[in-house]
Amino acid sequence: MPAKLVKTISGVRKAVQQVKKEGGKVGFVPTMGYLHEGHLSLMRQARKETDFVVISIFVNPLQFGPKEDLNRYPRDINRDKRLANEVGVDLIFYPDENEMYPQPFRTFVEVKELDEYLCGRSRPGHFRGVCTVVAKLFNIVQPDIAYFGQKDIQQARIIQQMVKDLNFPIKIKVMPIIREEDGVAKSSRNVYLSQSQRESACILYKALCYGKEKIKDNVRPTNVIKKMKEMITKEGGKIDYVELVDWANLKPVNKVEKGKKYILAVAAWFGKARLIDNEVITL
Amino acid sequence: MPAKLVKTISGVRKAVQQVKKEGGKVGFVPTMGYLHEGHLSLMRQARKETDFVVISIFVNPLQFGPKEDLNRYPRDINRDKRLANEVGVDLIFYPDENEMYPQPFRTFVEVKELDEYLCGRSRPGHFRGVCTVVAKLFNIVQPDIAYFGQKDIQQARIIQQMVKDLNFPIKIKVMPIIREEDGVAKSSRNVYLSQSQRESACILYKALCYGKEKIKDNVRPTNVIKKMKEMITKEGGKIDYVELVDWANLKPVNKVEKGKKYILAVAAWFGKARLIDNEVITL
Repeated sequence: MPAKLVKTISGVRKAVQQVKKEGGKVGFVPTMGYLHEGHLSLMRQARKETDFVVISIFVNPLQFGPKEDLNRYPRDINRDKRLANEVGVDLIFYPDENEMYPQPFRTFVEVKELDEYLCGRSRPGHFRGVCTVVAKLFNIVQPDIAYFGQKDIQQARIIQQMVKDLNFPIKIKVMPIIREEDGVAKSSRNVYLSQSQRESACILYKALCYGKEKIKDNVRPTNVIKKMKEMITKEGGKIDYVELVDWANLKPVNKVEKGKKYILAVAAWFGKARLIDNEVITL
Repeated sequence: MPAKLVKTISGVRKAVQQVKKEGGKVGFVPTMGYLHEGHLSLMRQARKETDFVVISIFVNPLQFGPKEDLNRYPRDINRDKRLANEVGVDLIFYPDENEMYPQPFRTFVEVKELDEYLCGRSRPGHFRGVCTVVAKLFNIVQPDIAYFGQKDIQQARIIQQMVKDLNFPIKIKVMPIIREEDGVAKSSRNVYLSQSQRESACILYKALCYGKEKIKDNVRPTNVIKKMKEMITKEGGKIDYVELVDWANLKPVNKVEKGKKYILAVAAWFGKARLIDNEVITL
Protein backbone atom coordinates (compact mmCIF):
# COMPACT_ATOMS: atom_id res chain seq x y z
CA MET A 1 0.00 0.00 0.00
CA PRO A 2 1.43 3.44 -0.87
CA ALA A 3 2.32 5.82 1.96
CA LYS A 4 -0.59 7.97 3.02
CA LEU A 5 0.10 11.70 2.72
CA VAL A 6 -1.41 13.51 5.72
CA LYS A 7 -1.33 17.28 6.10
CA THR A 8 -3.12 17.69 9.42
CA ILE A 9 -2.14 16.93 13.00
CA SER A 10 -5.53 15.40 13.69
CA GLY A 11 -5.10 13.09 10.69
CA VAL A 12 -1.79 11.81 12.05
CA ARG A 13 -3.21 11.29 15.53
CA LYS A 14 -6.13 9.31 14.17
CA ALA A 15 -3.94 6.97 12.12
CA VAL A 16 -1.45 6.43 14.94
CA GLN A 17 -4.17 5.81 17.54
CA GLN A 18 -5.62 3.08 15.36
CA VAL A 19 -2.20 1.38 15.16
CA LYS A 20 -1.66 1.63 18.91
CA LYS A 21 -5.12 0.29 19.65
CA GLU A 22 -4.15 -2.83 17.74
CA GLY A 23 -0.94 -3.07 19.78
CA GLY A 24 1.35 -1.94 16.96
CA LYS A 25 4.69 -0.16 17.50
CA VAL A 26 5.21 3.17 15.76
CA GLY A 27 8.55 4.22 14.24
CA PHE A 28 9.24 7.85 13.31
CA VAL A 29 11.77 9.60 11.08
CA PRO A 30 11.54 13.42 11.14
CA THR A 31 13.01 15.02 7.99
CA MET A 32 13.08 18.25 6.03
CA GLY A 33 12.48 16.30 2.84
CA TYR A 34 14.61 16.11 -0.31
CA LEU A 35 15.31 12.59 0.86
CA HIS A 36 18.62 10.83 0.28
CA GLU A 37 20.13 7.48 1.24
CA GLY A 38 20.81 8.79 4.76
CA HIS A 39 17.10 9.37 5.40
CA LEU A 40 16.17 6.14 3.66
CA SER A 41 18.50 4.11 5.89
CA LEU A 42 16.62 5.47 8.91
CA MET A 43 13.29 4.54 7.35
CA ARG A 44 14.49 1.04 6.52
CA GLN A 45 15.60 0.59 10.12
CA ALA A 46 12.19 1.80 11.31
CA ARG A 47 10.54 -0.58 8.84
CA LYS A 48 12.52 -3.47 10.36
CA GLU A 49 11.83 -2.58 13.98
CA THR A 50 8.29 -1.22 14.06
CA ASP A 51 4.82 -1.94 12.68
CA PHE A 52 3.92 1.51 11.39
CA VAL A 53 6.48 3.87 9.93
CA VAL A 54 5.75 7.60 10.01
CA ILE A 55 8.01 10.21 8.45
CA SER A 56 7.55 13.95 8.56
CA ILE A 57 8.57 16.31 5.79
CA PHE A 58 8.67 19.87 7.04
CA VAL A 59 11.27 22.53 6.30
CA ASN A 60 11.18 24.04 9.76
CA PRO A 61 11.62 27.83 9.58
CA LEU A 62 12.36 27.99 13.31
CA GLN A 63 15.73 26.29 12.87
CA PHE A 64 17.05 28.61 10.14
CA GLY A 65 18.88 31.84 10.94
CA PRO A 66 17.79 35.05 9.16
CA LYS A 67 20.72 34.80 6.71
CA GLU A 68 20.47 31.05 6.14
CA ASP A 69 19.11 29.01 3.26
CA LEU A 70 15.45 28.55 4.29
CA ASN A 71 14.07 29.81 1.00
CA ARG A 72 16.38 27.93 -1.32
CA TYR A 73 16.45 24.73 0.73
CA PRO A 74 15.73 22.01 -1.87
CA ARG A 75 12.20 20.60 -1.99
CA ASP A 76 10.61 17.87 -4.12
CA ILE A 77 7.59 16.24 -2.53
CA ASN A 78 6.80 13.97 -5.47
CA ARG A 79 10.27 12.50 -5.51
CA ASP A 80 10.13 12.17 -1.69
CA LYS A 81 6.80 10.34 -1.90
CA ARG A 82 8.18 7.90 -4.44
CA LEU A 83 11.29 7.18 -2.35
CA ALA A 84 9.27 6.80 0.86
CA ASN A 85 6.99 4.36 -0.92
CA GLU A 86 9.92 2.31 -2.10
CA VAL A 87 11.09 1.70 1.47
CA GLY A 88 7.57 0.97 2.71
CA VAL A 89 6.72 4.07 4.74
CA ASP A 90 3.11 3.99 6.00
CA LEU A 91 2.42 7.67 6.58
CA ILE A 92 4.04 10.92 5.44
CA PHE A 93 3.18 13.88 7.66
CA TYR A 94 3.49 16.90 5.38
CA PRO A 95 2.12 19.93 7.25
CA ASP A 96 2.25 23.53 6.15
CA GLU A 97 3.64 26.26 8.35
CA ASN A 98 0.24 27.31 9.63
CA GLU A 99 -0.52 23.79 10.82
CA MET A 100 2.75 23.67 12.76
CA TYR A 101 2.97 27.26 13.97
CA PRO A 102 -0.51 28.77 14.25
CA GLN A 103 -0.09 32.30 15.59
CA PRO A 104 0.45 33.37 18.31
CA PHE A 105 3.16 30.76 18.82
CA ARG A 106 5.14 31.35 22.01
CA THR A 107 6.70 28.14 23.33
CA PHE A 108 10.32 27.07 22.92
CA VAL A 109 12.36 24.10 24.09
CA GLU A 110 16.04 24.57 24.70
CA VAL A 111 18.88 22.24 25.69
CA LYS A 112 21.63 24.21 27.40
CA GLU A 113 25.40 23.49 27.31
CA LEU A 114 25.25 20.98 24.46
CA ASP A 115 24.53 23.85 22.07
CA GLU A 116 27.56 25.95 22.98
CA TYR A 117 30.11 24.56 20.52
CA LEU A 118 30.18 23.05 17.01
CA CYS A 119 27.16 24.14 14.96
CA GLY A 120 25.56 25.76 18.02
CA ARG A 121 28.19 28.48 17.99
CA SER A 122 27.82 29.43 14.33
CA ARG A 123 24.05 28.92 14.16
CA PRO A 124 22.52 30.69 17.20
CA GLY A 125 18.93 29.62 17.80
CA HIS A 126 19.26 26.64 15.44
CA PHE A 127 19.00 23.92 18.07
CA ARG A 128 16.22 25.73 19.90
CA GLY A 129 14.30 25.54 16.63
CA VAL A 130 15.17 21.88 16.24
CA CYS A 131 14.18 20.96 19.80
CA THR A 132 10.91 22.87 19.57
CA VAL A 133 9.80 21.24 16.33
CA VAL A 134 10.94 17.78 17.42
CA ALA A 135 9.07 18.11 20.73
CA LYS A 136 5.98 19.05 18.73
CA LEU A 137 6.43 16.16 16.30
CA PHE A 138 6.97 13.73 19.16
CA ASN A 139 3.69 14.85 20.75
CA ILE A 140 1.88 14.63 17.43
CA VAL A 141 3.21 11.24 16.28
CA GLN A 142 3.85 9.71 19.73
CA PRO A 143 6.26 7.14 18.30
CA ASP A 144 7.79 4.25 20.22
CA ILE A 145 11.13 4.73 18.46
CA ALA A 146 12.49 7.80 16.63
CA TYR A 147 15.48 7.64 14.29
CA PHE A 148 18.16 10.27 13.74
CA GLY A 149 21.29 10.30 11.60
CA GLN A 150 24.79 10.48 13.02
CA LYS A 151 25.69 13.07 10.39
CA ASP A 152 23.88 15.68 12.49
CA ILE A 153 25.54 14.35 15.60
CA GLN A 154 25.09 17.46 17.75
CA GLN A 155 21.39 17.40 16.90
CA ALA A 156 21.20 13.71 17.81
CA ARG A 157 23.00 14.25 21.14
CA ILE A 158 20.75 17.23 21.95
CA ILE A 159 17.59 15.26 21.14
CA GLN A 160 18.82 12.39 23.33
CA GLN A 161 19.28 14.85 26.19
CA MET A 162 15.88 16.46 25.60
CA VAL A 163 14.14 13.09 25.61
CA LYS A 164 15.88 12.09 28.83
CA ASP A 165 15.33 15.43 30.58
CA LEU A 166 11.68 15.87 29.57
CA ASN A 167 10.86 12.16 29.99
CA PHE A 168 9.47 11.61 26.51
CA PRO A 169 8.41 7.93 26.45
CA ILE A 170 10.38 7.43 23.23
CA LYS A 171 13.51 5.47 22.34
CA ILE A 172 16.03 7.38 20.22
CA LYS A 173 18.20 5.49 17.73
CA VAL A 174 21.16 7.16 16.02
CA MET A 175 22.15 5.48 12.76
CA PRO A 176 25.50 5.63 10.93
CA ILE A 177 26.42 8.23 8.32
CA ILE A 178 25.73 7.15 4.74
CA ARG A 179 28.42 8.25 2.29
CA GLU A 180 28.96 8.57 -1.44
CA GLU A 181 31.60 6.31 -2.95
CA ASP A 182 34.28 8.97 -2.51
CA GLY A 183 33.39 9.45 1.15
CA VAL A 184 31.24 12.60 0.96
CA ALA A 185 28.42 12.35 3.51
CA LYS A 186 24.95 12.25 1.95
CA SER A 187 23.16 15.56 2.50
CA SER A 188 20.27 17.39 0.91
CA ARG A 189 22.60 20.39 0.68
CA ASN A 190 25.05 18.56 -1.63
CA VAL A 191 22.77 19.74 -4.43
CA TYR A 192 24.21 23.25 -3.94
CA LEU A 193 27.68 22.02 -5.03
CA SER A 194 29.17 22.57 -8.49
CA GLN A 195 31.00 19.57 -9.88
CA SER A 196 34.43 20.85 -8.86
CA GLN A 197 33.16 21.82 -5.39
CA ARG A 198 31.67 18.36 -5.12
CA GLU A 199 35.09 16.87 -5.86
CA SER A 200 36.82 19.14 -3.36
CA ALA A 201 34.26 18.29 -0.68
CA CYS A 202 35.59 14.78 -0.25
CA ILE A 203 38.50 16.30 1.66
CA LEU A 204 36.21 16.55 4.72
CA TYR A 205 36.02 12.80 5.15
CA LYS A 206 39.69 12.38 4.27
CA ALA A 207 40.62 14.93 6.94
CA LEU A 208 38.37 13.16 9.45
CA CYS A 209 39.95 9.77 8.73
CA TYR A 210 43.41 11.31 9.04
CA GLY A 211 42.42 13.01 12.28
CA LYS A 212 40.83 9.93 13.81
CA GLU A 213 43.97 7.90 13.15
CA LYS A 214 46.23 10.55 14.65
CA ILE A 215 44.06 11.01 17.75
CA LYS A 216 44.12 7.25 18.25
CA ASP A 217 47.91 7.42 17.85
CA ASN A 218 47.97 9.93 20.70
CA VAL A 219 49.04 12.94 18.64
CA ARG A 220 48.07 16.19 20.40
CA PRO A 221 44.57 17.32 19.37
CA THR A 222 45.67 20.90 18.61
CA ASN A 223 48.26 19.61 16.14
CA VAL A 224 45.80 17.21 14.54
CA ILE A 225 43.18 19.92 14.15
CA LYS A 226 45.72 22.37 12.68
CA LYS A 227 46.72 19.83 10.04
CA MET A 228 43.07 18.98 9.25
CA LYS A 229 42.28 22.66 8.74
CA GLU A 230 45.22 22.96 6.35
CA MET A 231 44.02 19.97 4.35
CA ILE A 232 40.51 21.41 4.00
CA THR A 233 41.64 24.96 3.24
CA LYS A 234 44.03 23.70 0.57
CA GLU A 235 41.06 22.14 -1.25
CA GLY A 236 39.19 25.44 -1.24
CA GLY A 237 36.96 24.76 1.76
CA LYS A 238 36.19 27.73 4.02
CA ILE A 239 36.36 26.40 7.55
CA ASP A 240 33.57 27.02 10.05
CA TYR A 241 35.04 24.70 12.69
CA VAL A 242 37.17 21.62 13.19
CA GLU A 243 36.76 20.44 16.77
CA LEU A 244 37.41 17.46 18.97
CA VAL A 245 34.76 17.35 21.69
CA ASP A 246 33.82 15.11 24.58
CA TRP A 247 30.93 12.88 23.52
CA ALA A 248 29.11 13.43 26.83
CA ASN A 249 29.06 17.23 27.07
CA LEU A 250 30.18 18.32 23.56
CA LYS A 251 32.89 20.55 25.00
CA PRO A 252 36.24 20.85 23.15
CA VAL A 253 39.10 18.87 24.67
CA ASN A 254 42.85 19.48 24.49
CA LYS A 255 43.85 16.02 25.55
CA VAL A 256 42.19 12.64 25.45
CA GLU A 257 41.84 9.81 27.96
CA LYS A 258 41.67 6.05 27.57
CA GLY A 259 38.16 4.59 27.86
CA LYS A 260 36.41 7.81 26.86
CA LYS A 261 34.35 8.71 23.81
CA TYR A 262 34.94 11.74 21.60
CA ILE A 263 33.55 13.34 18.48
CA LEU A 264 35.83 14.76 15.81
CA ALA A 265 33.62 17.12 13.83
CA VAL A 266 34.01 19.49 10.90
CA ALA A 267 31.93 22.15 9.19
CA ALA A 268 33.12 23.97 6.11
CA TRP A 269 31.76 25.94 3.22
CA PHE A 270 32.24 24.82 -0.37
CA GLY A 271 30.69 27.59 -2.42
CA LYS A 272 27.15 28.10 -1.14
CA ALA A 273 27.01 24.77 0.67
CA ARG A 274 27.86 24.55 4.34
CA LEU A 275 28.71 20.87 4.85
CA ILE A 276 29.16 19.02 8.13
CA ASP A 277 30.66 15.65 8.91
CA ASN A 278 32.07 13.77 11.90
CA GLU A 279 33.65 10.64 13.27
CA VAL A 280 33.08 9.16 16.72
CA ILE A 281 36.31 8.11 18.40
CA THR A 282 36.30 5.62 21.25
CA LEU A 283 39.66 5.29 22.97
CA MET B 1 -8.71 1.33 47.94
CA PRO B 2 -6.21 3.84 49.34
CA ALA B 3 -4.13 5.91 46.92
CA LYS B 4 -0.93 4.17 45.90
CA LEU B 5 2.21 6.19 46.73
CA VAL B 6 4.71 5.88 43.88
CA LYS B 7 8.17 7.41 44.00
CA THR B 8 9.53 6.34 40.61
CA ILE B 9 8.76 7.42 37.07
CA SER B 10 8.72 3.81 35.90
CA GLY B 11 6.18 2.96 38.60
CA VAL B 12 3.84 5.69 37.38
CA ARG B 13 4.21 4.64 33.74
CA LYS B 14 3.41 1.04 34.60
CA ALA B 15 0.23 1.92 36.50
CA VAL B 16 -0.99 4.35 33.85
CA GLN B 17 -0.27 1.96 30.97
CA GLN B 18 -2.41 -0.67 32.66
CA VAL B 19 -5.31 1.78 32.93
CA LYS B 20 -4.97 2.87 29.30
CA LYS B 21 -4.79 -0.71 28.11
CA GLU B 22 -8.20 -1.25 29.67
CA GLY B 23 -9.51 1.87 27.90
CA GLY B 24 -9.61 4.04 31.03
CA LYS B 25 -9.20 7.83 31.01
CA VAL B 26 -6.49 9.35 33.20
CA GLY B 27 -6.95 12.61 35.12
CA PHE B 28 -3.97 14.48 36.56
CA VAL B 29 -3.51 17.17 39.20
CA PRO B 30 0.08 18.41 39.63
CA THR B 31 0.71 19.94 43.06
CA MET B 32 3.51 20.98 45.41
CA GLY B 33 1.65 19.28 48.26
CA TYR B 34 0.38 20.74 51.55
CA LEU B 35 -3.01 20.23 50.00
CA HIS B 36 -5.96 22.52 50.63
CA GLU B 37 -9.53 22.78 49.38
CA GLY B 38 -8.32 24.34 46.13
CA HIS B 39 -6.29 21.25 45.25
CA LEU B 40 -9.03 18.95 46.48
CA SER B 41 -11.60 20.61 44.22
CA LEU B 42 -9.38 19.77 41.24
CA MET B 43 -9.07 16.17 42.38
CA ARG B 44 -12.83 15.87 42.87
CA GLN B 45 -13.36 17.16 39.34
CA ALA B 46 -10.83 14.64 38.02
CA ARG B 47 -12.59 11.91 40.02
CA LYS B 48 -15.87 12.86 38.32
CA GLU B 49 -14.50 13.03 34.78
CA THR B 50 -11.86 10.30 34.58
CA ASP B 51 -11.29 6.67 35.55
CA PHE B 52 -7.89 6.96 37.19
CA VAL B 53 -6.83 10.01 39.16
CA VAL B 54 -3.12 10.76 39.50
CA ILE B 55 -1.74 13.61 41.57
CA SER B 56 1.89 14.61 41.89
CA ILE B 57 3.42 16.08 45.02
CA PHE B 58 6.76 17.68 44.25
CA VAL B 59 8.12 20.97 45.54
CA ASN B 60 9.86 21.89 42.30
CA PRO B 61 13.14 23.70 43.02
CA LEU B 62 13.32 24.93 39.40
CA GLN B 63 10.40 27.32 39.91
CA PHE B 64 11.79 29.04 43.01
CA GLY B 65 14.12 32.03 42.78
CA PRO B 66 17.33 32.04 44.86
CA LYS B 67 15.77 34.30 47.51
CA GLU B 68 12.38 32.59 47.57
CA ASP B 69 10.79 30.20 50.05
CA LEU B 70 11.87 26.81 48.65
CA ASN B 71 13.29 25.59 51.95
CA ARG B 72 10.46 26.70 54.20
CA TYR B 73 7.66 25.82 51.76
CA PRO B 74 5.21 23.80 53.92
CA ARG B 75 5.29 20.03 53.56
CA ASP B 76 3.21 17.27 55.20
CA ILE B 77 3.03 14.09 53.15
CA ASN B 78 1.00 12.14 55.70
CA ARG B 79 -1.70 14.77 55.85
CA ASP B 80 -1.62 14.99 52.02
CA LYS B 81 -2.03 11.21 51.72
CA ARG B 82 -5.03 11.25 54.00
CA LEU B 83 -6.70 14.11 52.13
CA ALA B 84 -6.00 12.52 48.73
CA ASN B 85 -7.50 9.27 49.99
CA GLU B 86 -10.62 11.06 51.14
CA VAL B 87 -11.33 12.35 47.64
CA GLY B 88 -10.55 8.99 46.02
CA VAL B 89 -7.20 9.64 44.33
CA ASP B 90 -5.76 6.47 42.77
CA LEU B 91 -2.06 7.29 42.60
CA ILE B 92 0.19 9.85 44.28
CA PHE B 93 3.44 10.45 42.41
CA TYR B 94 5.90 11.58 45.08
CA PRO B 95 9.36 11.69 43.48
CA ASP B 96 12.52 13.04 45.05
CA GLU B 97 14.69 15.63 43.34
CA ASN B 98 17.08 13.06 41.91
CA GLU B 99 14.24 11.20 40.22
CA MET B 100 13.03 14.42 38.57
CA TYR B 101 16.35 16.12 37.86
CA PRO B 102 19.11 13.53 37.48
CA GLN B 103 22.32 15.43 36.64
CA PRO B 104 23.31 16.68 34.14
CA PHE B 105 19.90 18.23 33.54
CA ARG B 106 19.96 20.68 30.63
CA THR B 107 16.51 21.08 29.04
CA PHE B 108 14.09 23.94 29.61
CA VAL B 109 10.67 24.84 28.26
CA GLU B 110 9.72 28.48 28.03
CA VAL B 111 6.55 30.32 26.99
CA LYS B 112 7.42 33.81 25.78
CA GLU B 113 5.30 36.99 26.11
CA LEU B 114 2.81 35.51 28.59
CA ASP B 115 5.54 35.64 31.27
CA GLU B 116 6.35 39.33 30.88
CA TYR B 117 3.90 40.83 33.35
CA LEU B 118 2.18 39.88 36.63
CA CYS B 119 4.18 37.24 38.54
CA GLY B 120 6.52 36.79 35.59
CA ARG B 121 8.02 40.21 36.20
CA SER B 122 8.71 39.76 39.91
CA ARG B 123 9.69 36.09 39.68
CA PRO B 124 12.16 35.77 36.77
CA GLY B 125 12.63 32.15 35.74
CA HIS B 126 9.58 31.01 37.72
CA PHE B 127 7.41 30.07 34.75
CA ARG B 128 10.30 28.46 32.93
CA GLY B 129 10.61 26.21 35.98
CA VAL B 130 6.87 25.57 35.98
CA CYS B 131 6.72 24.76 32.26
CA THR B 132 9.72 22.46 32.45
CA VAL B 133 8.38 20.42 35.35
CA VAL B 134 4.85 20.30 33.93
CA ALA B 135 6.16 19.13 30.53
CA LYS B 136 8.05 16.39 32.37
CA LEU B 137 5.02 15.41 34.44
CA PHE B 138 2.81 15.36 31.33
CA ASN B 139 5.25 12.98 29.63
CA ILE B 140 5.47 10.81 32.74
CA VAL B 141 1.75 10.61 33.55
CA GLN B 142 0.38 11.05 30.00
CA PRO B 143 -3.04 12.11 31.28
CA ASP B 144 -6.11 12.70 29.14
CA ILE B 145 -7.13 15.71 31.23
CA ALA B 146 -4.99 17.85 33.55
CA TYR B 147 -6.49 20.24 36.10
CA PHE B 148 -5.17 23.62 37.21
CA GLY B 149 -6.54 26.22 39.62
CA GLN B 150 -7.60 29.69 38.53
CA LYS B 151 -5.80 31.14 41.54
CA ASP B 152 -2.53 30.74 39.63
CA ILE B 153 -4.11 32.15 36.52
CA GLN B 154 -0.92 33.19 34.76
CA GLN B 155 0.40 29.67 35.27
CA ALA B 156 -2.84 28.22 33.89
CA ARG B 157 -2.75 30.49 30.82
CA ILE B 158 0.93 29.67 30.20
CA ILE B 159 0.28 25.92 30.48
CA GLN B 160 -2.65 26.25 28.07
CA GLN B 161 -0.34 27.97 25.59
CA MET B 162 2.41 25.38 26.08
CA VAL B 163 -0.01 22.52 25.51
CA LYS B 164 -1.32 24.17 22.34
CA ASP B 165 2.11 25.13 20.99
CA LEU B 166 3.84 21.82 21.74
CA ASN B 167 0.78 19.72 20.77
CA PHE B 168 0.53 17.79 24.02
CA PRO B 169 -2.45 15.44 23.52
CA ILE B 170 -3.95 16.64 26.80
CA LYS B 171 -7.02 18.66 27.69
CA ILE B 172 -6.44 21.42 30.26
CA LYS B 173 -9.23 22.38 32.66
CA VAL B 174 -8.99 25.49 34.81
CA MET B 175 -11.19 25.36 37.91
CA PRO B 176 -12.51 28.26 40.05
CA ILE B 177 -10.69 29.72 43.04
CA ILE B 178 -11.73 28.23 46.37
CA ARG B 179 -11.96 30.81 49.17
CA GLU B 180 -12.18 30.93 52.94
CA GLU B 181 -15.41 32.32 54.38
CA ASP B 182 -13.97 35.85 54.51
CA GLY B 183 -12.87 35.67 50.87
CA VAL B 184 -9.16 34.85 51.26
CA ALA B 185 -8.10 32.50 48.47
CA LYS B 186 -6.98 29.08 49.72
CA SER B 187 -3.22 28.76 49.44
CA SER B 188 -0.51 26.59 50.99
CA ARG B 189 1.31 29.83 51.79
CA ASN B 190 -1.51 31.07 54.05
CA VAL B 191 0.21 29.08 56.78
CA TYR B 192 2.91 31.79 56.87
CA LEU B 193 0.34 34.37 58.08
CA SER B 194 -0.02 35.49 61.69
CA GLN B 195 -3.59 35.86 62.88
CA SER B 196 -3.65 39.62 62.31
CA GLN B 197 -1.99 39.27 58.89
CA ARG B 198 -4.57 36.62 58.04
CA GLU B 199 -7.32 39.10 58.89
CA SER B 200 -5.68 41.88 56.85
CA ALA B 201 -5.25 39.56 53.87
CA CYS B 202 -8.95 39.50 53.12
CA ILE B 203 -8.51 43.00 51.66
CA LEU B 204 -7.14 41.38 48.49
CA TYR B 205 -10.47 39.85 47.58
CA LYS B 206 -12.37 42.94 48.71
CA ALA B 207 -10.18 45.11 46.47
CA LEU B 208 -10.70 42.69 43.57
CA CYS B 209 -14.50 42.79 43.99
CA TYR B 210 -14.41 46.57 44.17
CA GLY B 211 -12.18 46.73 41.10
CA LYS B 212 -14.25 44.30 39.06
CA GLU B 213 -17.39 46.32 39.72
CA LYS B 214 -15.71 49.59 38.78
CA ILE B 215 -14.19 48.16 35.59
CA LYS B 216 -17.63 46.86 34.63
CA ASP B 217 -18.98 50.37 35.36
CA ASN B 218 -16.45 51.71 32.87
CA VAL B 219 -14.28 53.56 35.37
CA ARG B 220 -10.78 54.15 33.97
CA PRO B 221 -8.48 51.22 34.83
CA THR B 222 -5.66 53.45 36.12
CA ASN B 223 -8.05 55.05 38.63
CA VAL B 224 -9.43 51.68 39.70
CA ILE B 225 -5.95 50.26 40.19
CA LYS B 226 -4.82 53.30 42.16
CA LYS B 227 -7.75 52.93 44.54
CA MET B 228 -7.19 49.18 44.89
CA LYS B 229 -3.54 49.76 45.79
CA GLU B 230 -4.59 52.27 48.44
CA MET B 231 -7.06 49.78 49.92
CA ILE B 232 -4.39 47.06 50.17
CA THR B 233 -1.65 49.34 51.48
CA LYS B 234 -3.96 50.72 54.15
CA GLU B 235 -4.40 47.19 55.52
CA GLY B 236 -0.63 46.71 55.75
CA GLY B 237 -0.16 44.78 52.51
CA LYS B 238 3.06 45.46 50.60
CA ILE B 239 2.07 45.57 46.95
CA ASP B 240 3.93 43.58 44.32
CA TYR B 241 1.45 44.39 41.56
CA VAL B 242 -2.17 45.24 40.83
CA GLU B 243 -2.79 44.87 37.11
CA LEU B 244 -5.60 44.64 34.62
CA VAL B 245 -4.43 42.51 31.68
CA ASP B 246 -5.88 41.18 28.47
CA TRP B 247 -6.90 37.55 28.99
CA ALA B 248 -5.41 36.53 25.62
CA ASN B 249 -1.88 37.94 25.86
CA LEU B 250 -1.61 38.92 29.56
CA LYS B 251 -0.50 42.44 28.66
CA PRO B 252 -1.68 45.38 30.82
CA VAL B 253 -4.47 47.46 29.31
CA ASN B 254 -5.37 51.10 29.88
CA LYS B 255 -8.85 50.85 28.49
CA VAL B 256 -11.32 48.04 28.02
CA GLU B 257 -13.58 46.97 25.16
CA LYS B 258 -17.02 45.35 25.04
CA GLY B 259 -16.96 41.64 24.28
CA LYS B 260 -13.42 41.10 25.52
CA LYS B 261 -12.05 39.17 28.47
CA TYR B 262 -9.67 40.55 31.09
CA ILE B 263 -7.92 39.48 34.25
CA LEU B 264 -7.72 41.76 37.26
CA ALA B 265 -4.86 40.39 39.34
CA VAL B 266 -3.09 41.27 42.56
CA ALA B 267 0.01 40.12 44.40
CA ALA B 268 0.96 41.52 47.81
CA TRP B 269 3.06 40.63 50.78
CA PHE B 270 1.55 40.19 54.21
CA GLY B 271 4.52 39.56 56.47
CA LYS B 272 6.46 36.66 54.98
CA ALA B 273 3.61 35.52 52.75
CA ARG B 274 3.39 36.69 49.16
CA LEU B 275 -0.27 36.15 48.28
CA ILE B 276 -1.87 36.28 44.83
CA ASP B 277 -5.49 36.49 43.75
CA ASN B 278 -7.50 37.45 40.68
CA GLU B 279 -10.87 37.90 39.06
CA VAL B 280 -11.71 37.24 35.43
CA ILE B 281 -13.80 40.05 33.92
CA THR B 282 -15.84 39.46 30.77
CA LEU B 283 -17.31 42.64 29.32
